[in-house]
Amino acid sequence: MTNSKLIYLDNNATTKVDEKVVEVMLPYFSQYYGNPSSIYKFGGRNSKAVQESRETIKDFFGAKNSKEIFFTASGSESANMAIRGILYADKSKNHIITTKVEHPCVLNLYKQLEKEGYNVTFVGVNSAGDLNIEELYDAVNEKTALVSCMYANNETGTIFPVEKIAEKVKSLNPNTKIFVDAVQAAGKIKLDVKNTQIDMMGISGHKFHAPKGIGALYVKSSTLIFPLVIGGHQENGKRAGTENVPFIVGLAKAAQLAQDNLNYEGTKVKELRDRLETGLLARIYNARLNSQSINRVPNTTNIGFEYVEGELILLNMDDLGICASSGSACTSGSLDPSHVLKAMGVPFTALHGSIRFSLSRYTTDEDIDYTLEKMLGIIEKLTKISPFQKELKELKQRKGII
Amino acid sequence: MTNSKLIYLDNNATTKVDEKVVEVMLPYFSQYYGNPSSIYKFGGRNSKAVQESRETIKDFFGAKNSKEIFFTASGSESANMAIRGILYADKSKNHIITTKVEHPCVLNLYKQLEKEGYNVTFVGVNSAGDLNIEELYDAVNEKTALVSCMYANNETGTIFPVEKIAEKVKSLNPNTKIFVDAVQAAGKIKLDVKNTQIDMMGISGHKFHAPKGIGALYVKSSTLIFPLVIGGHQENGKRAGTENVPFIVGLAKAAQLAQDNLNYEGTKVKELRDRLETGLLARIYNARLNSQSINRVPNTTNIGFEYVEGELILLNMDDLGICASSGSACTSGSLDPSHVLKAMGVPFTALHGSIRFSLSRYTTDEDIDYTLEKMLGIIEKLTKISPFQKELKELKQRKGII
Repeated sequence: MTNSKLIYLDNNATTKVDEKVVEVMLPYFSQYYGNPSSIYKFGGRNSKAVQESRETIKDFFGAKNSKEIFFTASGSESANMAIRGILYADKSKNHIITTKVEHPCVLNLYKQLEKEGYNVTFVGVNSAGDLNIEELYDAVNEKTALVSCMYANNETGTIFPVEKIAEKVKSLNPNTKIFVDAVQAAGKIKLDVKNTQIDMMGISGHKFHAPKGIGALYVKSSTLIFPLVIGGHQENGKRAGTENVPFIVGLAKAAQLAQDNLNYEGTKVKELRDRLETGLLARIYNARLNSQSINRVPNTTNIGFEYVEGELILLNMDDLGICASSGSACTSGSLDPSHVLKAMGVPFTALHGSIRFSLSRYTTDEDIDYTLEKMLGIIEKLTKISPFQKELKELKQRKGII
Repeated sequence: MTNSKLIYLDNNATTKVDEKVVEVMLPYFSQYYGNPSSIYKFGGRNSKAVQESRETIKDFFGAKNSKEIFFTASGSESANMAIRGILYADKSKNHIITTKVEHPCVLNLYKQLEKEGYNVTFVGVNSAGDLNIEELYDAVNEKTALVSCMYANNETGTIFPVEKIAEKVKSLNPNTKIFVDAVQAAGKIKLDVKNTQIDMMGISGHKFHAPKGIGALYVKSSTLIFPLVIGGHQENGKRAGTENVPFIVGLAKAAQLAQDNLNYEGTKVKELRDRLETGLLARIYNARLNSQSINRVPNTTNIGFEYVEGELILLNMDDLGICASSGSACTSGSLDPSHVLKAMGVPFTALHGSIRFSLSRYTTDEDIDYTLEKMLGIIEKLTKISPFQKELKELKQRKGII
């Protein structure tokens, strides 16, 4: 792998750990390995490192107090801890509102909660990928325990107006709690929880150049949740287990680097994404942009190649060293089309041939040049062997190509 | 810290990550960072690395099939996943049997389960630290959902006959499930689950020179558990979240090194522990061995220094660069005496002045020489300022010193 080409355009699946992050983590493995709970100085220095990291993550969330920050092992754990935790803490209400396009991790938990007796409303999106907000507001009632809405969609990059939603929902029912899955927003757009009505927000380190295996959950200080992992006193009694000191320190460093690079994300990464997107749409007649929303994170585009099979596209890309995906990595292996694109009403002609490209600050101009060039060849080749020749000809005619 | 002395005798709290472990993890941060769930080769190689590690951990547990191994983020998560998971999967029985000397992580979960309506029997130990096995057997009835017993006690090192217990319990009620918290046994004695009736066994990497933040749970293939973290398909649908590839690879390496060093643990580490133990008992008249059990892991000893305050001993040790603890790290900060020593009936005269020394393969002869020398001075000094001079004098007389 080291000697062959690697164009990594799947940063919404996972990211390269920044070498500066590795550097700050390293001493905590074999040199400063004390248990933060120990009373001697060798443990205390690690307790201090954890506390300093908590401060940094507090700033990253834009939270008021570092006591509102809990370290977890993943975005999935953050979501499970928030959702289970809030529902367990107050069992008086049994209605939940979420969206049809949440990450599978969150969606599967709500499907389980339905089996456990909760009444879950799944709010839809329009063809641009934007949330049907009025539908969400209409669903709020006095039994609504929780409104759970992602910040940015992992497949299309569409940003949902979570701050506005939180405000409106609280005005409709002040007792309803708000959970925001910000896994795909963190590191791409600025977070600012303290000026919102959001009660809980989850993030995952490996989406912004920290390692896999570390996440965080923000819980507003006035919001009570029950722990998911019970045991020791760590994380203020809300999440037992000896602190993963190296990864906590690494998460803080990654957050700080992400913060420093927000402007670069919004300018250079966006420019590269836009060049890839417009390039593909201009050069490939059966390409279509799946999310036309004007509110998108800067690194993501989702392109449907009509009448071509997505798996085949990805395998051909892989042979040329280009990594991308057809949906969330967590649903890979399944041949079902994306639940997000289905909810948007993407026509079946494009549904099976849709590819998500997600860039990062490591993406270069050369990566985009190479990808544009190779994609043209791949789609041309696959279009030729598509069983839908009649439909492709009609598409060409509609586009005025023949 | 780097320039000052560090004699680390708190390996039951956490361990130094073996440099060979760091070495195998490193490439998985910034070089091979693909998501194991991705379909391209760059992800597939990580999926393979996870699978190979699962095979190694299977062998470490002595399990039959790698499908019985689930990676978690900690020993606490392993325990919560096992206990919550088994109780959720079968709600027909509401009785649990555990011991009074479990790790606080497990104990606190059972205290919570009592609040949730479970009937929990806490079995005691004798003054040597050995479990009252007959008391455990007598408690088994047709409503017993779970018997949960640690393999080795973290404070005294006492080994409980979990294989024998599992066999007997299954003969009394074949539907009762068995969970073994093997966090303090793994890496110190050989595990061999396939030849036992044990249903579930949890371990934590950072107790045997893997990093903090990785654990594993063995679940016998015929035993069904419900997941604690719901979401993606990872870990066979039993534990959602992108796999922590570097730590999984590191855990496997640490397990393999621990396996290779089992003989060293049982000989050299034991010899060092015994020399420390007999040395302290011989030289310090108010020292007593808290666990006289002949079944102990080779690295642990727990010594009570009568009429002296444990916190003071630890702080004096810290000043001389010696790390040890007065109980589990998870309960540090609390001034309550150890629940383990209380259950053993350790007299109050020694309860507050008890110190756990836990060694590792990194402990040297010089470490033990230094500790023996310094402990003598510390205890002499603290004995002089003890408010219990009359009692100390009587103790001296009883021992024939004066």
